[in-house]
Amino acid sequence: MADRYLDFVNTPLGKQLAGTLNLPTPVKLQRWKKPDQPFIEGKVLIGGSKDGKALAAIADVVKTGSTEIFFAEGPTSLANSSSLARSHKAKPLNLSETSSLPKLKALVFDATGIKDAAELKALYDFFHPVIRQIASSGRVVVIGSEPSKCRTPAKAAAHRALEGFVRSVGKEIGKKGATAQLLWMEAGAENQLESSLRFFLSPKSAYVSGQVVKIAKVGQGKSAASAVAPLTGKVALVTGASRGIGESIAHTLARDGATVVCLDIPAAMEALNQVAKSIEGHSLGVDITEGNSPDVIADFLQDKFGGVDLVVHNAGITRDKTLGKMPEHFWDMAVDVNMAAEERINDALFARDLIRENGRIVCVSSMSGIAGNFGQTNYALSKAGVIGYVEALARQLKKQITINAVAPGFIETQMTAAMPIGTREAGRRMNSLGQGGLPVDVAETIAWYCNPLSTGINGNVVRVCGQSLIGK
Amino acid sequence: MADRYLDFVNTPLGKQLAGTLNLPTPVKLQRWKKPDQPFIEGKVLIGGSKDGKALAAIADVVKTGSTEIFFAEGPTSLANSSSLARSHKAKPLNLSETSSLPKLKALVFDATGIKDAAELKALYDFFHPVIRQIASSGRVVVIGSEPSKCRTPAKAAAHRALEGFVRSVGKEIGKKGATAQLLWMEAGAENQLESSLRFFLSPKSAYVSGQVVKIAKVGQGKSAASAVAPLTGKVALVTGASRGIGESIAHTLARDGATVVCLDIPAAMEALNQVAKSIEGHSLGVDITEGNSPDVIADFLQDKFGGVDLVVHNAGITRDKTLGKMPEHFWDMAVDVNMAAEERINDALFARDLIRENGRIVCVSSMSGIAGNFGQTNYALSKAGVIGYVEALARQLKKQITINAVAPGFIETQMTAAMPIGTREAGRRMNSLGQGGLPVDVAETIAWYCNPLSTGINGNVVRVCGQSLIGK
Repeated sequence: MADRYLDFVNTPLGKQLAGTLNLPTPVKLQRWKKPDQPFIEGKVLIGGSKDGKALAAIADVVKTGSTEIFFAEGPTSLANSSSLARSHKAKPLNLSETSSLPKLKALVFDATGIKDAAELKALYDFFHPVIRQIASSGRVVVIGSEPSKCRTPAKAAAHRALEGFVRSVGKEIGKKGATAQLLWMEAGAENQLESSLRFFLSPKSAYVSGQVVKIAKVGQGKSAASAVAPLTGKVALVTGASRGIGESIAHTLARDGATVVCLDIPAAMEALNQVAKSIEGHSLGVDITEGNSPDVIADFLQDKFGGVDLVVHNAGITRDKTLGKMPEHFWDMAVDVNMAAEERINDALFARDLIRENGRIVCVSSMSGIAGNFGQTNYALSKAGVIGYVEALARQLKKQITINAVAPGFIETQMTAAMPIGTREAGRRMNSLGQGGLPVDVAETIAWYCNPLSTGINGNVVRVCGQSLIGK
Repeated sequence: MADRYLDFVNTPLGKQLAGTLNLPTPVKLQRWKKPDQPFIEGKVLIGGSKDGKALAAIADVVKTGSTEIFFAEGPTSLANSSSLARSHKAKPLNLSETSSLPKLKALVFDATGIKDAAELKALYDFFHPVIRQIASSGRVVVIGSEPSKCRTPAKAAAHRALEGFVRSVGKEIGKKGATAQLLWMEAGAENQLESSLRFFLSPKSAYVSGQVVKIAKVGQGKSAASAVAPLTGKVALVTGASRGIGESIAHTLARDGATVVCLDIPAAMEALNQVAKSIEGHSLGVDITEGNSPDVIADFLQDKFGGVDLVVHNAGITRDKTLGKMPEHFWDMAVDVNMAAEERINDALFARDLIRENGRIVCVSSMSGIAGNFGQTNYALSKAGVIGYVEALARQLKKQITINAVAPGFIETQMTAAMPIGTREAGRRMNSLGQGGLPVDVAETIAWYCNPLSTGINGNVVRVCGQSLIGK
């Protein structure tokens, strides 16, 4: 499971050799360590186009990190932010004085005010002088408006354009381990920015880059949530929790305060019990393809906790073969485990109204579900189905319950360790960060969805893939 | 511009060498040759799940090609098609008798009846026995329903699942030069299938694979159109028409009967005149970034033809540099030529109501606009903007006017011929068909959008990229 090349090129000798031979030099990504560390450490530059709506909200969130804040000044296309700078005890940074710009941990740009192609110039005026100042494992976040909700085609075009920009920026800064994201915020959803800004600016989003997230306005304002243990008091169900990504999800949700019910097949009971024990959680040995399993699960949650807050459908299998050679049971199993079983479990939970107010459902899709894959017609079909399910159910959910998906790319697990070396190395390197992700990278993304403050995040599919080259 | 490797591996010696050395062996794609050739030549197998809505419509279209039609019989998950087989003078083909299956040019599957994950099994039952029978440059087309219009999350999931399936199939059959597409048909849009089935089953779609197309129901039934020269009587404007893809678009629309106004910058006037002359069209030397150019164009179309039917925004430029090193005018030019200028031209045409009933607007986006690209923040931004523009304007258009985009991948042009060999070879091979496309592949896709029968095709973005690995 170790990426020895990554370790090697980050030694002095490895750096030198890689430089001489012109080999890729992925950096060691910063990841989250202590529960009480600030979500961002280092200097943050905030800026925006004229008429932006989110600058104050961005500054309010950023200043809760222990960091030094700057507001961009200079080019006339940018918002005049001096009053904000004063109220937030931040410094103005004149972008025209390019000789004295500091190293910056994050660049956050409010593009919500942009109305057409010409006004996109504000992006150039903000990023051009400072993009080379971005630190190792740095962060770029752009806030725009969802194109389908823009009134004019010219504005929709400009906000869709942000996506091409951010994806390109991600590809340019990835070699520093830095990431870039686009948040499409609905008008009036400024109070829903917090959990997403905190996640995407922090080391928790280490392996997420080039993603577009929709943030919707929700009826009520934000809930209260502890920054250190935001899931305190929540009950979580995690399927496939005995190892790999599922184990990491269980650990991460428990770290954030949740009581976790770890589910896996009876054959994995020993490992499952160990995971559950290590996080003071519960274990539930159930085969989710068995007919009565939805009721067994619902009974367990109802009897022990009277309901559930967080449901993470992580259990999944691959049964690879090209379509012409695929045995029938390979098709049946992949579709049933990866797609049908989670629908049946949800149906049982909804039928008894067991998912509580501001609850969360998270499904694990896959890069294959987005791009398709050779030898995976069954798996890609099921994982694409998961996306369709998430998008459709998101439109119907009540009680501020949300449903979202993660789509992992190349993650260092026992599964990827068993790949032939050529496939493994290609998978590892063919992304902007030049390395595979860790199970915890998927788990942190799920924890962001599960945060009680993420009510405005609904129906999203976020890839955890280091901005893999591979897509649709 | 020649792909010498492709030529070489298709010689006897090349085949042998490539086999010995385990090198990629892309096949020569079949392309359209004579205007009166049938749209498909060879055996076509049609099948569907139970309760499908499109089987008869599919058969009606396919039988207008000069071909031998079979209806799938056998597995119980499939529709009983014997009455259709009789009425279409087609043969039933029992898929359970796997020893005697013929070579098939196309497999067309009606999945519209599928209601949930379990019913997806019909795909396996249809494709598993026959997928290895697919011919060189063969075709797979699956018809489903648009997930966002499915009533239940389970049905939406199943129809979104088709996308993962089709993209995987495309990756498996690409080495034969065969392609796979998914058409999401709105309920009641059966009469809108014709132009799309004819295009995706024909050699005209040689370099299009792994695409998803939405086909909407439209108020009126289909217009009459000649199969040989469907654009007869139409006036087309093509920007950037002096060479490369634009030149090919002009030629292809003229072949299909349109009178073409070829537009390019005054500096390209000589080449432009030659193109116009060769197709008995008109040439218009205009710099579309000039302030008065929209009026000059509108005046020309109004005075000469009283309006325009087909507007193809093909003119585009690249000005590559990483963001930190990008001169200001690189940004300005890319955004203005690729994005803002086409909006201004459309505005002028709409303001004078010059685009006629059942008119067509086609924009040329790019793979970079979807995936982003290193060194192309400006270009990717502008080409992503084009997608946003198309999607937004599609919702507002009246008079059965449509707007769609093509997103070319690696196309063999002077631009790609000038690339360094490493970049060029990677671009050429990193797709399911293992080769670059030709300008005519983009042009044929545009001609399909322009077909008077394509009224139900609106707001789509179709990649012409051989199912490139690279995506978002």
